[in-house]
Amino acid sequence: MSDKKTNINVGSFSCPLPIMDYTTIQMAHGAGGKLSADLIEKVFLPCFGNETLNKMEDQATLENPNGRLAFTTDSFVVSPIFFPGGNIGELAINGTINDICMNGAVPKYLSCGFILEEGLLIADLHKIVVSMKQAADKAGVQIVTGDTKVVDHGSCDKLFINTSGIGIIPNEIDMGISKIEIGDNIILSGTIADHGMAVMTTREGLSFKTQITSDTAALNRLVHKMLNVSTEIHAMRDPTRGGVATTLNEMAKSAQKGIQIYEDKIPVRDDVRGACEILGIDPLYVANEGKLIAFVKKDIAEAVLAAMHKNEFGENATIIGEVVDEHIGKVAMKTPLGINRIVDMPIGEQLPRIC
Amino acid sequence: MSDKKTNINVGSFSCPLPIMDYTTIQMAHGAGGKLSADLIEKVFLPCFGNETLNKMEDQATLENPNGRLAFTTDSFVVSPIFFPGGNIGELAINGTINDICMNGAVPKYLSCGFILEEGLLIADLHKIVVSMKQAADKAGVQIVTGDTKVVDHGSCDKLFINTSGIGIIPNEIDMGISKIEIGDNIILSGTIADHGMAVMTTREGLSFKTQITSDTAALNRLVHKMLNVSTEIHAMRDPTRGGVATTLNEMAKSAQKGIQIYEDKIPVRDDVRGACEILGIDPLYVANEGKLIAFVKKDIAEAVLAAMHKNEFGENATIIGEVVDEHIGKVAMKTPLGINRIVDMPIGEQLPRIC
Repeated sequence: MSDKKTNINVGSFSCPLPIMDYTTIQMAHGAGGKLSADLIEKVFLPCFGNETLNKMEDQATLENPNGRLAFTTDSFVVSPIFFPGGNIGELAINGTINDICMNGAVPKYLSCGFILEEGLLIADLHKIVVSMKQAADKAGVQIVTGDTKVVDHGSCDKLFINTSGIGIIPNEIDMGISKIEIGDNIILSGTIADHGMAVMTTREGLSFKTQITSDTAALNRLVHKMLNVSTEIHAMRDPTRGGVATTLNEMAKSAQKGIQIYEDKIPVRDDVRGACEILGIDPLYVANEGKLIAFVKKDIAEAVLAAMHKNEFGENATIIGEVVDEHIGKVAMKTPLGINRIVDMPIGEQLPRIC
Repeated sequence: MSDKKTNINVGSFSCPLPIMDYTTIQMAHGAGGKLSADLIEKVFLPCFGNETLNKMEDQATLENPNGRLAFTTDSFVVSPIFFPGGNIGELAINGTINDICMNGAVPKYLSCGFILEEGLLIADLHKIVVSMKQAADKAGVQIVTGDTKVVDHGSCDKLFINTSGIGIIPNEIDMGISKIEIGDNIILSGTIADHGMAVMTTREGLSFKTQITSDTAALNRLVHKMLNVSTEIHAMRDPTRGGVATTLNEMAKSAQKGIQIYEDKIPVRDDVRGACEILGIDPLYVANEGKLIAFVKKDIAEAVLAAMHKNEFGENATIIGEVVDEHIGKVAMKTPLGINRIVDMPIGEQLPRIC
């Protein structure tokens, strides 16, 4: 059974819009009283409900896992909350799953903390909640605890979501930036800048022949396939805010190694490249939400790549460079003309509120 | 060594305000570039730094615990962010610790997700971060992972904080609302409505002879002392948003038992009662941030109470009522005049943004 087929089956969750006394979020929906209970019982539980969450305790009780724990947190403030290819809720689930699995952990449990603006359409919230459940099901994780706050109109922009998560790291896996070695190949799982440009073109009202859609996706099944090939994958990261350039810079600095990449190896969709040119943005600095960068021992790189190509989120995976013994702590990129230039960390804010 | 002494020793953490290029938060502080790194390196790491956090991976790796896990999340949006007796950061740490330990878990690890408004004073953020570290130290928990987002001025109100947390439930502990029995005594750990009225009087600009201060506190050491007396403590809750009235209503409904309480047994500070009268608020519905309600087997109640009185956060603990076989799913309160009235769930929002 292919991943794609599994995904279609489990992603079919749907849930009718509940009949409620209000069509928009009221301050009282966050006050812990009857309306709070109403919101939880009609919007959250019908979607997220499971044995652990339904107990409605202030904390989830989870079985003792066999392995070390991976624990992560991420807040999502993307604007607009709906964008081509996804929405803030789906992004929150996928983003936190990706953070968990980048050290080889199997993501298991998620929490959701909602900050809602008074006046938010409950239909919008419900649409987001349904897509969160779909995303969690697709990735095989459970939402086990949550919290809702409502702030007065004007005190937040529609809604913000925090998702924290727990994963289990199998005993045989030991990944991290400190494992990176000179000579490691650097694999990128697909095209860059899709998410950031989907959000930016929506915000700017730009339209192209084809619509640029976000790449938001949970990568845990792809990571699992890669680790099945070899546990000698040294480190992985998902190049979100700040894009591939920022992630590689952080890794070069943290590992105290040099990174060499090749511009013509980095896949960029034509429409994304066009949008970047119009807006004067370098795709290397644009956020991705369904991509990973892996540092793997050179002699297993091709086998890992072959495994990635069989997964829907790794079809366009390619080796974009290697770890070198030069320009320690920095990233250099060779252009098609043969010029090798330093790719620096961005100083300022290129794309605000992209995730 | 008394708790108090321990607390004074470990609560002495301090950290000088860092010298930075900006005095206020810029959009670029959330962009994942150089300014983001600057904020993390100068504000967050000097305060929160520990072996796990310092690895700066996107997720924390934690040792395999011996016991079931408790997992919780809570977002904090209190306004104002500084109030008598505390601030939003201290509240976030204590609040999440309390959610974790209410089922007998020992709180271990916390995450912090910050949503910062462009223009926030870095000195204010720093003060909050320092107090978070102090609160975490005092309770004996570690902050192991975090995330920062910055939104444009006007898109959030100064700062919001999500704290999620993990605790370990010892194998011999098995608490929960389903364990509540007819005849159980209901213990309240101290005076009610302190936190809510500290925030409200600050907001309304009311002043009294004595300043009403928040009761924000981590209750894990108190819970530990109680469980040392007996594991026949059936359930615990911290009566935060919606106060004692809302928490007891939720428990009565969830346990499908009746709850009987006695008005003259419920401790309220004179200044808090006065402020409630002026503002027309019932203290039973006002948030507490350092109190717990415990349902304990009748024959161990006095012993548990005696242990609580020895802890700084349980000095005023008292038995306020019992679980009864009448008015199933509801809470009744006998007034000093002998009238027994139903204490209902609040419908609307009495005190917005109290936590």
